[in-house]
Amino acid sequence: MHRVVSRMQFKVLAKDGAARRGRLNFARGSVETPAFMPVGTYGTVKAMTPEQLESVGAQILLGNTFHLYLRPGLDVIAAHGGLHGFMHWERPLLTDSGGFQVWSLKEMRKISEEGARFRSPVDGAPVFLSPEESMRIQRVLGSDIAMSFDECTAYPASEAEARASMELSMRWALRGHRAYYAGDPPGALFGIVQGGVHASLRAASLEALEAVDFQGLAIGGLAVGESAAERRAVLEGLVPSMPGHKPRYLMGVGRPEDILEAVLRGIDMFDCVMPTRHARNAHLFTRAGVINIRNAMHHKDTGPIEEGCACYTCSNYSRSYLRHLDRCGEILGSHLNTVHNLYFYQRLMAEIRAAIEGGRLAAYAAEFHALTGQGSRAAD
Amino acid sequence: MHRVVSRMQFKVLAKDGAARRGRLNFARGSVETPAFMPVGTYGTVKAMTPEQLESVGAQILLGNTFHLYLRPGLDVIAAHGGLHGFMHWERPLLTDSGGFQVWSLKEMRKISEEGARFRSPVDGAPVFLSPEESMRIQRVLGSDIAMSFDECTAYPASEAEARASMELSMRWALRGHRAYYAGDPPGALFGIVQGGVHASLRAASLEALEAVDFQGLAIGGLAVGESAAERRAVLEGLVPSMPGHKPRYLMGVGRPEDILEAVLRGIDMFDCVMPTRHARNAHLFTRAGVINIRNAMHHKDTGPIEEGCACYTCSNYSRSYLRHLDRCGEILGSHLNTVHNLYFYQRLMAEIRAAIEGGRLAAYAAEFHALTGQGSRAAD
Repeated sequence: MHRVVSRMQFKVLAKDGAARRGRLNFARGSVETPAFMPVGTYGTVKAMTPEQLESVGAQILLGNTFHLYLRPGLDVIAAHGGLHGFMHWERPLLTDSGGFQVWSLKEMRKISEEGARFRSPVDGAPVFLSPEESMRIQRVLGSDIAMSFDECTAYPASEAEARASMELSMRWALRGHRAYYAGDPPGALFGIVQGGVHASLRAASLEALEAVDFQGLAIGGLAVGESAAERRAVLEGLVPSMPGHKPRYLMGVGRPEDILEAVLRGIDMFDCVMPTRHARNAHLFTRAGVINIRNAMHHKDTGPIEEGCACYTCSNYSRSYLRHLDRCGEILGSHLNTVHNLYFYQRLMAEIRAAIEGGRLAAYAAEFHALTGQGSRAAD
Repeated sequence: MHRVVSRMQFKVLAKDGAARRGRLNFARGSVETPAFMPVGTYGTVKAMTPEQLESVGAQILLGNTFHLYLRPGLDVIAAHGGLHGFMHWERPLLTDSGGFQVWSLKEMRKISEEGARFRSPVDGAPVFLSPEESMRIQRVLGSDIAMSFDECTAYPASEAEARASMELSMRWALRGHRAYYAGDPPGALFGIVQGGVHASLRAASLEALEAVDFQGLAIGGLAVGESAAERRAVLEGLVPSMPGHKPRYLMGVGRPEDILEAVLRGIDMFDCVMPTRHARNAHLFTRAGVINIRNAMHHKDTGPIEEGCACYTCSNYSRSYLRHLDRCGEILGSHLNTVHNLYFYQRLMAEIRAAIEGGRLAAYAAEFHALTGQGSRAAD
């Protein structure tokens, strides 16, 4: 095994049941956990400047290796000294490995022991991604957290299919670890637990990753069609076995209520396109549920999206104005909606952190669900 | 004649040849002239927040009465106490009268002595706009400067056609003046000189407006297809006859070089969609001419749009990044390009104002044209 140069420290500051209040330290700044990472696929969180992301409370962003590798290409980002310089974001960045996006191509890709071969959705050119190539790309991107290149296990999958897929991912994880730590890495590498909804496979996957000593552990292959109950069962079966001193990242999750449920079960990190994508589709988060600002009921509503919300949008604009911008296809509408939704998520995480510190997360969750439950009935 | 309650003061602070350095004072703030007004058609300057508009130096915006009347409708804006409150812009606003947009509908509208009848391009509903209705709308919008409802004279037009059109506009201007000042108006009303490219008609139009005493005078019916030489001839024939104590506004102009030429001939105010529209189409202004950021030559260019430019975009992002955002259809690209182009225009106006104060506008113009001339040859 290679000696791991630690570019990231993680401390658990407080606990409340299984929930943890922690801090990730990087040379580029710290991240208070539980943390939500806005998604910046192409080197931009859609419709937001980096300064605006900071102002809504974002401490770390997620970049997509697959997309950036195809556009603008690695040579361009290397010319800017990495992704931070390219996109003018000085704080920490996490990049995924490209594995999930390759898997999403379905019949357009061919996966072998060596790696994944596919045609670029941008220009049709043949592309080959392997654990080694994914690590090389993420090193050039300069990610503070790099993710293992893995195969996402389909849902549903038989136990045999899920096992074969997980075991391939574990061999890839080992190869990636070797490649990432050969030479001075710019950040920390996380392993990804696979195994579908099968508890024994999840346990075997965790064991395989722990034998290699990744600096953090992610849970992959969820939020791909399984039920909420299945997801909860995976978390409850797996998380208690995960080492306490490493950050735990639940990939691609999710709705506010999903995040809260996962924090209660011991998860520290999240990412999801939901707040930003919803914003561009006029779906705005409130405590009482999601509202559709396109709805005619907001035509002349001079109130904010949510009373009491301190975000820039709610402080200065009415529902009526936001509906008008949406109807006219105005770019400012996408921006103002995104500000609100990301602020909503970051405020949720701040409240969750405070609740853990105060030992009252269960009460907070009960209150949250009561409000959202009422809201789901009331919301348009 | 009605007593005009003055909600606007204009002072000429310095002169340099025919060029004037002035200041417009409103309750909502002052505007240094010569001034450029970014266009906010639907209650938003596309891709910009009001704070960002202030940060690039905008002091006054233009709103489009025609568009706002159709969407969101006057009841919505009235519910917000006017356009300022609706769009969260606390500084001065000028609104056009809707006349130009009605005229642009061509065969879809019917113009009579009474006013203009047309079908809404939004929903096909019949709409009637008259001088009185335009004033009513602009009063509800709460514009600091309202514009007379006029008919834009087509180009080309015979002298007889241009005369008939101009005379209709003058009768409308008088009716509008009566309507606007019946009761306490929220701002100042400007008259619009028409008459096409015919010097005697322009003179007659000016005389008709001066008989009514508008607080400012605009020159309409230009930038509709005439040559630059014809436009210059209109300005040179008309402006020397315009009263020195009223602000002069050249509507819909234009390119940086057109603005400079018009300032040299005594114009104080401008508006144009060019900087914002160009930005969304990847055309960016530099001293050496317009560049197309889509051009492959910018693929790996880590330099800013323009060396030495102090705008937010040039301070933080490369041509390469902006090209990437444009290729990916990212909203942030439209925003960053707009920031640069509007900053370019506002910086141009600030330099023009300083040059007039220093009595060196002719030298500034010569230098500007020399640079732009070189640039036009060199630019991509």
